[in-house]
Amino acid sequence: MQHCTSLTPMQTLVAVDWGTSSLRGARLDSVGAVLEERAFARGILTVAPGEFPAVFQTCFGDWMQADKALCLIAGMAGSQQGWMQAPYCACPAGFDEVASQLSWIMPGRIAIVPGLSCTHDGVPDVMRGEETQVLGALQLLNLHEGLIVLPGTHSKWVQVRGGKIETFSTFMTGEFYALLRQHSILARTLPEVDGELDRSAFDDGVAFALRSNSLLQSAFSVRTLALFERRAKTSLPSYLSGLVIGEEIRTQSLEPGEAVVVIGSDALTQRYEYALAQRGVSVRRAGSEVTWRGLLALALPIPSKEK
Amino acid sequence: MQHCTSLTPMQTLVAVDWGTSSLRGARLDSVGAVLEERAFARGILTVAPGEFPAVFQTCFGDWMQADKALCLIAGMAGSQQGWMQAPYCACPAGFDEVASQLSWIMPGRIAIVPGLSCTHDGVPDVMRGEETQVLGALQLLNLHEGLIVLPGTHSKWVQVRGGKIETFSTFMTGEFYALLRQHSILARTLPEVDGELDRSAFDDGVAFALRSNSLLQSAFSVRTLALFERRAKTSLPSYLSGLVIGEEIRTQSLEPGEAVVVIGSDALTQRYEYALAQRGVSVRRAGSEVTWRGLLALALPIPSKEK
Repeated sequence: MQHCTSLTPMQTLVAVDWGTSSLRGARLDSVGAVLEERAFARGILTVAPGEFPAVFQTCFGDWMQADKALCLIAGMAGSQQGWMQAPYCACPAGFDEVASQLSWIMPGRIAIVPGLSCTHDGVPDVMRGEETQVLGALQLLNLHEGLIVLPGTHSKWVQVRGGKIETFSTFMTGEFYALLRQHSILARTLPEVDGELDRSAFDDGVAFALRSNSLLQSAFSVRTLALFERRAKTSLPSYLSGLVIGEEIRTQSLEPGEAVVVIGSDALTQRYEYALAQRGVSVRRAGSEVTWRGLLALALPIPSKEK
Repeated sequence: MQHCTSLTPMQTLVAVDWGTSSLRGARLDSVGAVLEERAFARGILTVAPGEFPAVFQTCFGDWMQADKALCLIAGMAGSQQGWMQAPYCACPAGFDEVASQLSWIMPGRIAIVPGLSCTHDGVPDVMRGEETQVLGALQLLNLHEGLIVLPGTHSKWVQVRGGKIETFSTFMTGEFYALLRQHSILARTLPEVDGELDRSAFDDGVAFALRSNSLLQSAFSVRTLALFERRAKTSLPSYLSGLVIGEEIRTQSLEPGEAVVVIGSDALTQRYEYALAQRGVSVRRAGSEVTWRGLLALALPIPSKEK
């Protein structure tokens, strides 16, 4: 399959990660060296319809002009509420499938990376932005098979086979934590600030969730353990975090001894490392550089993919 | 075991259900006929510490004076934030255990019914108010064994054996619905008002939850089904309701052909009837009169319990 993009050795890549609440960009040379990075508090929620070109021009206009750079944009900028709707690419999808379904805003110059869709039991699932991180991780770690986890507001568990994203599942883990933390009856029991991670409380939360059947039930233990003074108030946010992450991990099909790749912040990745250890699973880390690496891979004709 | 209470044939019972957000009372004669009922928007959250006696006097002072009535109070009035903390009675607990652990505010005249506690896997669970409803249902239905469900903000599944509440489990079902409905990303997808129950959407939600492993995952389907226009917006509240109730029911150990008793409003009981039908379980209904019946049973020396 032919790529529609092809960064020349003379061109720079303007790699953009335009999410719901943040806008980040990097200028990369054709071998992937980061020449410069920028971040703005201009997530798509702050941008009115029609204002996307102007915001883009303000943030990255100089980079685009310098040497007729190519720009690829990943993330929610491709959603209904974004710059231009980029249709979802159906799984299984690898570099070629994603690169061939770019949505061009300015042909040959600015394109949006499609999100991915898959189906479980007749019900669709979607991601937008994470596909680029996964593709970057596959490149960085030289990986063709495995399980990749992207923890967050809506965690993604991604199954990779033969160098392609075969399927994935979304878990509203971070959002459930925030809902329970801020708006539920448990909020009255929890201290105002989360504080440092209490490892032992977190582990207890994970362990209880792994033995439970549903967060609907296990979450109530935050209240009762506090009521009977069985757990210090300051430890409750860590315990609740363990419950929701443990619930996510409970439902996964994992073999002891297996390793999964986790793409996330150091703090969140560490929590997943602790939690997965209770199922005998180890973690291989991939950091935030995966997004730039993924966009670069989509911009370059990759020899191994052109056979 | 001796009861500390004993309503005489000449006395009336002032039966009070004092919950978090409402205060209801009934005047009953010694055979249980309801002489009068009252309801006030004076749940314990509206009452300042120290004001409970005055609020009680205003609402029920005349009933108490009439014939030296006996008053039993069930519900959150017995919690830390209530009139007086009534310690939890440990399960298994039946009429005798509960009646012998009343907390007397005015000896022989006004008492608070204890809540119940039990333990699962080392973690405590509690109820307050529901124990009285269950005891009332056992009386009304002449039941000694079985499974009783009290759906609501915090649903209770109660196992009764030998006329006693052996154990129970809490599920934060109603609260999770409200959190997802009002504060989550799904709120943007849902219509402003819930509207009438859409039976087919509700059934689909239950069915998907019964096939799923966690609400963390199944809840995201509200978003994706809307995104792909696979389900009408107006049907989404019913679908989400099916998902959370289905998640609660998924975790229960139930045999097809079994009947469970459901104590709740007609509308909510009907939803449980629909949902439980998918597991081949039928529903026996018990209405709101169970609270008065439970309080009456606790006030009377019951011959069958005095052996």
